[in-house]
Amino acid sequence: MKKLNIGVIGYGFMGRTHSNAYRQVSKFFETEYEPVLKVACARNEERLKSFARNWGYESYETDWRRLIERDDVDAIDIAAPNNMHRDIAIAAAEAGKMVLCEKPLGRNPEESREMVQAGGKGGVPNLVWFNYRFVPAVALAKNIVQSGKLGRIFHYRANFLQDWTIDADLPQGGEGLWRLDVDAAGSGVTGDLLAHCIDTAMWINGPIASVTAMTETFIKERMHQDTGNVEKVGIDDACAFLARFANGSLAIFESTRYARGHKALYTFEINGENASITWDLHDLHRLSYFDYADDKAVRGWRSIHVSNAGGEHPYMDKWWVPGLNIGYEHSFTHGAFHFLKSLEGEEGERAFPTFADALQTDKVCAAVLESGSSRKWQEV
Amino acid sequence: MKKLNIGVIGYGFMGRTHSNAYRQVSKFFETEYEPVLKVACARNEERLKSFARNWGYESYETDWRRLIERDDVDAIDIAAPNNMHRDIAIAAAEAGKMVLCEKPLGRNPEESREMVQAGGKGGVPNLVWFNYRFVPAVALAKNIVQSGKLGRIFHYRANFLQDWTIDADLPQGGEGLWRLDVDAAGSGVTGDLLAHCIDTAMWINGPIASVTAMTETFIKERMHQDTGNVEKVGIDDACAFLARFANGSLAIFESTRYARGHKALYTFEINGENASITWDLHDLHRLSYFDYADDKAVRGWRSIHVSNAGGEHPYMDKWWVPGLNIGYEHSFTHGAFHFLKSLEGEEGERAFPTFADALQTDKVCAAVLESGSSRKWQEV
Amino acid sequence: MKKLNIGVIGYGFMGRTHSNAYRQVSKFFETEYEPVLKVACARNEERLKSFARNWGYESYETDWRRLIERDDVDAIDIAAPNNMHRDIAIAAAEAGKMVLCEKPLGRNPEESREMVQAGGKGGVPNLVWFNYRFVPAVALAKNIVQSGKLGRIFHYRANFLQDWTIDADLPQGGEGLWRLDVDAAGSGVTGDLLAHCIDTAMWINGPIASVTAMTETFIKERMHQDTGNVEKVGIDDACAFLARFANGSLAIFESTRYARGHKALYTFEINGENASITWDLHDLHRLSYFDYADDKAVRGWRSIHVSNAGGEHPYMDKWWVPGLNIGYEHSFTHGAFHFLKSLEGEEGERAFPTFADALQTDKVCAAVLESGSSRKWQEV
Amino acid sequence: MKKLNIGVIGYGFMGRTHSNAYRQVSKFFETEYEPVLKVACARNEERLKSFARNWGYESYETDWRRLIERDDVDAIDIAAPNNMHRDIAIAAAEAGKMVLCEKPLGRNPEESREMVQAGGKGGVPNLVWFNYRFVPAVALAKNIVQSGKLGRIFHYRANFLQDWTIDADLPQGGEGLWRLDVDAAGSGVTGDLLAHCIDTAMWINGPIASVTAMTETFIKERMHQDTGNVEKVGIDDACAFLARFANGSLAIFESTRYARGHKALYTFEINGENASITWDLHDLHRLSYFDYADDKAVRGWRSIHVSNAGGEHPYMDKWWVPGLNIGYEHSFTHGAFHFLKSLEGEEGERAFPTFADALQTDKVCAAVLESGSSRKWQEV
Repeated sequence: MKKLNIGVIGYGFMGRTHSNAYRQVSKFFETEYEPVLKVACARNEERLKSFARNWGYESYETDWRRLIERDDVDAIDIAAPNNMHRDIAIAAAEAGKMVLCEKPLGRNPEESREMVQAGGKGGVPNLVWFNYRFVPAVALAKNIVQSGKLGRIFHYRANFLQDWTIDADLPQGGEGLWRLDVDAAGSGVTGDLLAHCIDTAMWINGPIASVTAMTETFIKERMHQDTGNVEKVGIDDACAFLARFANGSLAIFESTRYARGHKALYTFEINGENASITWDLHDLHRLSYFDYADDKAVRGWRSIHVSNAGGEHPYMDKWWVPGLNIGYEHSFTHGAFHFLKSLEGEEGERAFPTFADALQTDKVCAAVLESGSSRKWQEV
Repeated sequence: MKKLNIGVIGYGFMGRTHSNAYRQVSKFFETEYEPVLKVACARNEERLKSFARNWGYESYETDWRRLIERDDVDAIDIAAPNNMHRDIAIAAAEAGKMVLCEKPLGRNPEESREMVQAGGKGGVPNLVWFNYRFVPAVALAKNIVQSGKLGRIFHYRANFLQDWTIDADLPQGGEGLWRLDVDAAGSGVTGDLLAHCIDTAMWINGPIASVTAMTETFIKERMHQDTGNVEKVGIDDACAFLARFANGSLAIFESTRYARGHKALYTFEINGENASITWDLHDLHRLSYFDYADDKAVRGWRSIHVSNAGGEHPYMDKWWVPGLNIGYEHSFTHGAFHFLKSLEGEEGERAFPTFADALQTDKVCAAVLESGSSRKWQEV
Repeated sequence: MKKLNIGVIGYGFMGRTHSNAYRQVSKFFETEYEPVLKVACARNEERLKSFARNWGYESYETDWRRLIERDDVDAIDIAAPNNMHRDIAIAAAEAGKMVLCEKPLGRNPEESREMVQAGGKGGVPNLVWFNYRFVPAVALAKNIVQSGKLGRIFHYRANFLQDWTIDADLPQGGEGLWRLDVDAAGSGVTGDLLAHCIDTAMWINGPIASVTAMTETFIKERMHQDTGNVEKVGIDDACAFLARFANGSLAIFESTRYARGHKALYTFEINGENASITWDLHDLHRLSYFDYADDKAVRGWRSIHVSNAGGEHPYMDKWWVPGLNIGYEHSFTHGAFHFLKSLEGEEGERAFPTFADALQTDKVCAAVLESGSSRKWQEV
Repeated sequence: MKKLNIGVIGYGFMGRTHSNAYRQVSKFFETEYEPVLKVACARNEERLKSFARNWGYESYETDWRRLIERDDVDAIDIAAPNNMHRDIAIAAAEAGKMVLCEKPLGRNPEESREMVQAGGKGGVPNLVWFNYRFVPAVALAKNIVQSGKLGRIFHYRANFLQDWTIDADLPQGGEGLWRLDVDAAGSGVTGDLLAHCIDTAMWINGPIASVTAMTETFIKERMHQDTGNVEKVGIDDACAFLARFANGSLAIFESTRYARGHKALYTFEINGENASITWDLHDLHRLSYFDYADDKAVRGWRSIHVSNAGGEHPYMDKWWVPGLNIGYEHSFTHGAFHFLKSLEGEEGERAFPTFADALQTDKVCAAVLESGSSRKWQEV
């Protein structure tokens, strides 16, 4: 097997999911390339060493510029906060490294556009970690829609509901909480959560043409962990928007971190002329499917446990036996698989979002945020 | 419309459901006969008068023998405690009255056999109120099985779980609590709840051939409301049994009044070679159906909301519009409809349990109770 | 008992539900007044006679003006198409009759305002049949919110999804299909379905301050049953809107008749600081409730089967026993109960929507439709 | 970190889950010992080499006796068919190796008893892979019961329903199908599936005292893959039994491979005086919990998504963030964690089933099978 040497930047939540994916992918999927955990990179050396040792990285670097200079690294994986994505990605691409970047790509379309240009110039393989595409049930939903079973699509709905920031005493910024700091994150739920919903939606249902949005920051001020001062909160705590897809279907999207009772409830529903689909991250192996062609006496929403090992359920032939679940983490394993396959040349698959795809999502996010301020419909 | 004059004995829970059914049936279903609430009958005159006035009975009687003597009554409906069923039913049948009797028929097969003979002798139309057959989703289950969609049936499961007698301070006997008094009731959950499960099961899946049971009385003594004394509890608080149907399928049945969290959870599941079905009284309009013939990628349990008005869902064309539920009470309305139709002669339907059918259920109950004591398999 | 003589105009779906409610209310609820089905009124005499006979009306009229002139009628119930509401209601109120009107009140706020004035002038008791308030689980939701258990409310969501007009061959107008004819109905899903969602929402969560909407007519032309010609469809097939409540909470509302798989899926969800609630008409006895105060190890969404008979679940002490459902139709029975109680004077309850309340709902609907055209936020 | 050198026998389904657990445990849990995939062992050399290479084993052996002789192996993991468990386990224990054995321990209590003795003699640490104990929601169920929240326990129910052997053309024996061959497996669903249910049940609710069972082999003959002949099927296709626990609670257990629609539906329900619990493997992160102490208006079954990272949900503080699932495979990871911790001495935990525990389960299985033949209650 060919080795693909990887340098991962960031040891947080995403640093862990990416490391795990690289370690696991070749145990379950056949690919020409096998990822090697070559270098871990972050600023806090003590924590970095512990992270690197735990995951079995061969070495570590505390300066990402040093990492990029290394000849023994083929691909850079960016799992650092959003405000670092652009500089790292551009430098890596210019150095001829492949780049795998956490979502969202940039903090805004301007940053993303530069990254696309850098990625495109060198022609380096690139990927953005919109991992939910790779959940088996979501991939099955894509297959069903692509097969034409739904017919003309009338409606798309997506929610990403959480409740972890209701406490007004929660600080913003710093360790573990940079997602509440607008400088580090770019935006709140829009870039963090709705970006996932939008990526999935456009993957399955095509481009979004126009939007009108409502945004809110419920807690106006929070202590900032970096400064110790109470500072204005710049992110959107909640965002809902109406949209029209290019194919004529209508949509509503909503995300919030103030929906008491929901930990990470990403759901979507698609209503077509002939069939409909719903999905829910909390029970991620279930896809609900309604087929109007069923005999009318016994027609109903089917609860599909997407765990068949016979090939008809995406990815599941590589895991255990029917009825047995895999975890959230393997959405990343599957993403890594697709990326590795794409390196195999003409035969390789490219079923993952690239920088160019992620730019489209960023544009929708920007239109949404703009509409939240302007209170007007925005074309994308 | 021809009138069918009815005398109802008992003003408790079942006196109310039966009265309501007779009042409502002709508003929603077309029949030649229309029931008339002619006479209400019970011992407590004050409460009886109030009951009769409320439901619009034309008159009342405090002695059921007087009721049976009346020439202006065509049918006797028995909604009195179980220990009164036999005498009333036999007297009514011998007087040539039609008889509609609450379940279980007798307190044991001996009583039931006498009632069948009395009913049979005079050839009077008779019905036993195993009302769950008439829930639209249950009737749909019967239709599906009858259509052959399940193929060979391997398994049948039924539960009737309640939790209302866990409190050890609850008395037995007397007003509202005769179901805990073995003399009045005959047995506990077996005759009260499992009888329902057995009736549905044999209606859908044919005769039960043999059983082995386990019974328990968790609270051994309770104050008796009639005597004021603490007395031994004679009923079964809980009963579970294994069974074999004549068609070779295996079954488990269970009922208890000690299943904390379940108010009246009657459920059943049937597994056939090609398809399966489940149902649950708490959400009585839902039938779950699994069809192995579905395309394997999108195969799953279908949650059918049994509320279509196009004729394919039993009874529902007579009610509102798709998606809108009817209540528990209309299982009785539908039973009354079938009984009225059966009076129309050759064209009439007879889709309800008669005394003879109920005797079979009583025999299974008796075998179950016997097995609970003998700890041996019993043939039915 | 005092009699309340009622004249019902219309023998369609709503004529049936109202007639049933008047017949049933006094069997289950105690009130000083008992409704009498005095007169049925509609234009088609043959069908009217059949309807009147079926439901036991004492007489009938084919001209609603004649009905209003009758001295033996106390209350007029309007179950005719929307374009007849105004004239009948005003004439009835001016004649001193009580008025119970199907929703929406008028086809637009102008009509509704005239009706409020007419109702108010004579001071006649009046009600608008926003029946979903009277579903036990919905009433429980109102109680929970009112108790303060949710704390500050952040989010409200409501959907009313159907799929019965997807077929492009379905005609508009005339018998059974006037809801597709903009002249008869005033609007499409906004007045028919979203009006229900808005009434419930404002009842539970207070006034809606502003909205921005998206409307669509998927099938642009349909044959008109009255003319036999293919005509432009004037109604909204689908409508979604974002809203802000006066109390600062954010909302999304959506309705469509093109959501394949949903028959009449009215759902709502309310997220508060401390607790949340969801409800779904298809399983109308279930209320889901999440309480953050629960011990964190065993915290979860509670599925409450709203069927307790001990008084804690609204209305259910009047029906059967715990675990047993009542039907959709009794939302009207409960509405009739509240109306009758309100006639008892100071002691009477007035827990139902009046003309004045319905006008507020109509104003929101009008703002929604206006925003659908203008593509701008509208203040209500 | 200390190394624990492991030799795994078998490269099938369980060989994979065990290998994965050993690879993953130290990435997520802190332990003194780190497992090393030292040797893989099986008879088919070609497939063995591929397996060993894939999982990163340092070496391989084709003879398990050779494996046991190796000085560089600390622990033997038995993932071979059931008929090999005894000989390997005894030889390993006698050689002073730790033993981790797939369930069931032996094919019958006689075999298991010998293994316990061998394990006990040398005092070698041992474990049996009843992995479902280590699912977070199951472990939470155990915690809840242990806390006393349920009070006196009245009922226990467990099912393990599958549908993969309905096809009469499926052969028995040989590659992938030894579970259908009574010589290799010992029994059918009883040892394969009910053993899991029994282990969980006794772990949570204490010893089972007596049972009465019903067993069935629906397909009487199947082609044997080893001989090519059609041979009698010796296993139980389905088994249901009633049981009494030592604590007085009643139980029903059922397993089958003929429940169309269920892939691997392991469920259990426990009803106590004050609270109840249900769980379902298909949605393994959900635990349903009913607490009678809740305010009666809002009392209902709580659907707990067992994914909190704050420590209150077993194991989940080691994985991702709240709302995100882990897979079936990590039940083994958690088992490996407990085993490693137990090696740390007094401080170590021993929260896993040993040979001695598994013998108790085997005894219940034997009583169940005996009762299936004798048709009599059997004491355990």
